[in-house]
Amino acid sequence: MKKIQKLLVANRGEISLRIMRTAKEMGISTVAVYSEVDRNAPHVKFADEAVCLGPPPSNQSYLLMDKIIEVSKNLNVDAIHPGYGFLSENATFAEKVKKAGIIFVGPSPAAIEVMGSKLAAKHAVSKYDIPMVPGTEDAISDIPKAKVKAKEIGYPILIKASAGGGGKGMRIVENEAEFEEQMNRAISEAQSAFGDGAVFIEKYITSPRHIEIQVLGDTHGNVVHLFERECSVQRRHQKVIEEAPSAVVSEKMRNAMGEAAVKVAKACDYYGAGTVEFIVDENLDFYFLEMNTRLQVEHPVTEMITGKDLVKEQILIAEGHPLSFAQEDLTINGHAVEVRVYAEDPRNNFLPDIGNLQTYIRPQGAGVRVDDGFEQGMDIPIYYDPMIAKLITHADTRELAIDRMIRAIEEYYITGIETTLGFCKFVMEHDAFRSGNFDTKFVEKYFTPDKLDIQWTEEELKLLAAASVELIEKEKKNLRKVKSIQNGALPRTNWKNRLH
Amino acid sequence: MKKIQKLLVANRGEISLRIMRTAKEMGISTVAVYSEVDRNAPHVKFADEAVCLGPPPSNQSYLLMDKIIEVSKNLNVDAIHPGYGFLSENATFAEKVKKAGIIFVGPSPAAIEVMGSKLAAKHAVSKYDIPMVPGTEDAISDIPKAKVKAKEIGYPILIKASAGGGGKGMRIVENEAEFEEQMNRAISEAQSAFGDGAVFIEKYITSPRHIEIQVLGDTHGNVVHLFERECSVQRRHQKVIEEAPSAVVSEKMRNAMGEAAVKVAKACDYYGAGTVEFIVDENLDFYFLEMNTRLQVEHPVTEMITGKDLVKEQILIAEGHPLSFAQEDLTINGHAVEVRVYAEDPRNNFLPDIGNLQTYIRPQGAGVRVDDGFEQGMDIPIYYDPMIAKLITHADTRELAIDRMIRAIEEYYITGIETTLGFCKFVMEHDAFRSGNFDTKFVEKYFTPDKLDIQWTEEELKLLAAASVELIEKEKKNLRKVKSIQNGALPRTNWKNRLH
Repeated sequence: MKKIQKLLVANRGEISLRIMRTAKEMGISTVAVYSEVDRNAPHVKFADEAVCLGPPPSNQSYLLMDKIIEVSKNLNVDAIHPGYGFLSENATFAEKVKKAGIIFVGPSPAAIEVMGSKLAAKHAVSKYDIPMVPGTEDAISDIPKAKVKAKEIGYPILIKASAGGGGKGMRIVENEAEFEEQMNRAISEAQSAFGDGAVFIEKYITSPRHIEIQVLGDTHGNVVHLFERECSVQRRHQKVIEEAPSAVVSEKMRNAMGEAAVKVAKACDYYGAGTVEFIVDENLDFYFLEMNTRLQVEHPVTEMITGKDLVKEQILIAEGHPLSFAQEDLTINGHAVEVRVYAEDPRNNFLPDIGNLQTYIRPQGAGVRVDDGFEQGMDIPIYYDPMIAKLITHADTRELAIDRMIRAIEEYYITGIETTLGFCKFVMEHDAFRSGNFDTKFVEKYFTPDKLDIQWTEEELKLLAAASVELIEKEKKNLRKVKSIQNGALPRTNWKNRLH
Repeated sequence: MKKIQKLLVANRGEISLRIMRTAKEMGISTVAVYSEVDRNAPHVKFADEAVCLGPPPSNQSYLLMDKIIEVSKNLNVDAIHPGYGFLSENATFAEKVKKAGIIFVGPSPAAIEVMGSKLAAKHAVSKYDIPMVPGTEDAISDIPKAKVKAKEIGYPILIKASAGGGGKGMRIVENEAEFEEQMNRAISEAQSAFGDGAVFIEKYITSPRHIEIQVLGDTHGNVVHLFERECSVQRRHQKVIEEAPSAVVSEKMRNAMGEAAVKVAKACDYYGAGTVEFIVDENLDFYFLEMNTRLQVEHPVTEMITGKDLVKEQILIAEGHPLSFAQEDLTINGHAVEVRVYAEDPRNNFLPDIGNLQTYIRPQGAGVRVDDGFEQGMDIPIYYDPMIAKLITHADTRELAIDRMIRAIEEYYITGIETTLGFCKFVMEHDAFRSGNFDTKFVEKYFTPDKLDIQWTEEELKLLAAASVELIEKEKKNLRKVKSIQNGALPRTNWKNRLH
């Protein structure tokens, strides 16, 4: 058991700040690192010490493993927290930190390694009874055999190239009649794209939901789960809205998913905070997808409903403490929703809208939390993920948490750049979201930029029309004056003044 | 049961904003009122509609009952929330609102009236078994009889003028031997000050704590309590730090206080949110002090530990709904602390330090709530209470909530005016506060302005000394230049520029 005295956060922005807040509450002094463009960022100002790593492209700053370790040694840092992204799931970095005699606030390099590879992860958990998406374990190219297998799995099925990626050689087959033709196409596509015609067959989940389980393990072999988070509202496979608990997970399903997640964690002797991701089908059957061996972006919703500070738990585990609570000590308190606020223009295909936060006023009040890394007047740098903030609300019920979120979104006041706030409000107000009846295809199914158009009431339109008439009359008057001046009705100097 | 459609908040600043946030979450449209100096205040910007009441002295704006009712009628307002202060405990206003056919979000005028008078309140609750500070019920002037009574009550006792106020004619008597002399003095002081020598005798509580119970009653006769808040840290009888639950209240004491508070509320057929205040002695015996018939400044700590939105409950009650939960549905979740941040200078006898909020950056993160009514760049007006904000933290335990508060105070960044943040940090770090061993005399006992002086470490002093030497050398260089200029070493015009 080693008490951490000084913690370096090898990250930037909101997550760096969020981690340092907990460190400060625990009496641990903090070291920030930053790239040249982040020199004036709040995470740098908040830290007790801060070190510049280099210029902005991350491979010249935030990804410099040896430099970060060197800085840590020079400043007598005894632990490094990697946050998420950057070096957080890099087994080599975890190993290097360990070798330098510094505590890595995260799991073992071996666990990172195993869970970093889908195949190795699948293999590791295979001896446990973890549900997987039904499919062939090995690549297949024999069509009659494949057809038998496909029938076994049940249609619709998905054929995907063994060597593939990026959707190439991927085919959805709705029924047996189409199978042979589609299989042939998939094989030839895979052959021409990757020089390898081998394909896998697996069950195609028509209406998938993304539900994940937060786990915490200590170095004494204890693992608990902190219930689920649903992150089905995604845009291009990027989570944009998360909540805990899920609108569709029953107590029984929660227990089953929790137990499966704990088994996955135990399969790789996991310690620290981790997330076991599942895909859930329309019958609410769940299948193991992968494990993320770090703190998730969306961890605050779990904190809101459990009352636990996940970063604090990570630090205590890293110090060698056994978990201070058992599974039965944990209960769900209310409901929490998180929206990610991006500097992106939802009317322009969500392209990043980099610029200056001319006005930046956060929502406040009961049950509202904003995790961000900016202040009014700052520029959003172009070099990093354009997330401005995570806005989280908590209330007694799902409906109230969503209503609170709508209020908070309306209260958030940002000028100077376009943001996804309006898009988030669209989701919060959508019947499919509010009723819990949605899947990962929510955005493509329902969102179009015109949904952001303001709906004017008849009364408002009348007001606008009246205001327009008034403006036109005013302009007419001005123009009349200018014209009479031009006609020599007033002295010329005065006219000049008026036009300036 | 009448659904409120439009709510006018007859208040300003943080509480107006806080009430409107809940209204917005409930789908109720909002009307703000404001004085001329508050024209650009956040509570005005937040509201759907806003009306100026008049110039700043409150008797020309926020206290204009008839004008507020007139505005309400003109805008089809169907309910008025008075907040705290201003008209919130004015029975006449409550009555006028009612007569105008508008819902008053608060108790009946009769309940406000009764609880507004200490004597009437005492009388109202007398038939219930509510503990009162032991003492004479009627004024007394017969010394031998008084002596017997004093012995009955038990020393130390307090003698106070029946007609009195402001501490005149007030005497603390430690033991029987002193009684006669002190009684004589009190009577003659009362006689000369008020022309009436009658005095009361009551138990003197040496080490009083202020602990209050939050109650909620509906219009169907149901009353529940939402546990206690301790507000013993006060300055000149003004609460400055509040918490829930109290560090010293046991489950048994909580139930007893809660039951007593519910009886007090029932004694005046109370509905709405109210607070029953008790004084608690060193043996943890509690005595009824008074009832506040409105929302308290410190209500957020109760919201944090119960998960209930007190303003929402007030509105539902005003609409005629029965309480949606019973006593047994309520539980305490963690611990919450609130500090009031004032624009006052703790080094200068806490005199108001009115001015401009040049920098105003709020703390953020898990378990932190800031209720305020200002934005960066705004002026603190001189006309009102100089409270800038209420800073509330919530965590699993009292110790963690205090640690979180210290972190949040350090993160709060205000320039342009002096604030009480440093004073609040002093309290949070003080052993007496942290151990729970304190009373209403905490501030006078422990606080002196030098407690705010920064304690420099030897290392920091060395750094300061080195920096000073550097500064002196730099200044020397500048002065050398000026002197050589004065000596004619450089052209005169240049010298003039330099001095400007």
